[in-house]
Amino acid sequence: MQEYVLSVKVANNAGVLPRVSGLFSRRFFNIKSLNAAETEVESVSRLTIVVEGDLKILEQIKSQLLKLYEVQDVQILSDAVCREHILIRAGRSSEERQKIIEIANLYRAKPVDIAADSIMLELTGEPKKINSFVELLKPYGIIKMVRSGITALERD
Amino acid sequence: MQEYVLSVKVANNAGVLPRVSGLFSRRFFNIKSLNAAETEVESVSRLTIVVEGDLKILEQIKSQLLKLYEVQDVQILSDAVCREHILIRAGRSSEERQKIIEIANLYRAKPVDIAADSIMLELTGEPKKINSFVELLKPYGIIKMVRSGITALERD
Repeated sequence: MQEYVLSVKVANNAGVLPRVSGLFSRRFFNIKSLNAAETEVESVSRLTIVVEGDLKILEQIKSQLLKLYEVQDVQILSDAVCREHILIRAGRSSEERQKIIEIANLYRAKPVDIAADSIMLELTGEPKKINSFVELLKPYGIIKMVRSGITALERD
Repeated sequence: MQEYVLSVKVANNAGVLPRVSGLFSRRFFNIKSLNAAETEVESVSRLTIVVEGDLKILEQIKSQLLKLYEVQDVQILSDAVCREHILIRAGRSSEERQKIIEIANLYRAKPVDIAADSIMLELTGEPKKINSFVELLKPYGIIKMVRSGITALERD
């Protein structure tokens, strides 16, 4: 299925997240990732939502989103810079940690927390790069990871 | 008001985001940022939610979250590595762009898209660092920005 990245500008209020995400779930539109954070304008947030599905239904959701009074703008991004950030803890044995450090160097991932029995790395990059980084680490004991979900800004 | 970072592990389904975010909004608990993305386990997502409010009410929300059948785990993080990523476009004039490049060098922010009339930078770091980066750029024509919201993983 085709993947789409939406950028949604909303006025901050307690109900906006359930309302926006509810529009997708009522149509069984799968949200792959979502992030919501403040912007350059006070009390305005920007949501970046990655979905998989049919463009026609997505266009319908877009017009329904625009009817919500908190929603100020909705863009389906076509040519955008996409980034994702990951924090990942792995490596139970010292042999595993050795391998992990090699992979980290290859990707220029940064160690952020080194414990006696594991290592935590961080990496920012294109989503594809994050995926391949995780794939490479999988044999070496991933303990826990958290991904930011995609953030995206249209190119000029 | 005190800020708290929650890490919530959920089974992926279309309704989980409106249900989880709805629990906060019904108690007028302000979500400052939220991100949701896949984990090392297929069909399991991790949400990182930053909220402001009263710990007692937050504990109540936590136990309500745990009653949702999709929710597998809820942690209120105390000692965690917190990171945020930002994409920011700024600088309408060449004088502004000159200043922006100086600030970018100071923060080791990376230029990702350079247009005739603006520059797009990316930076990952502690939320405080991202805040001060944005503050420094404000006088130089911020055109658009998107923050990932905080992702966090407990220290060992």
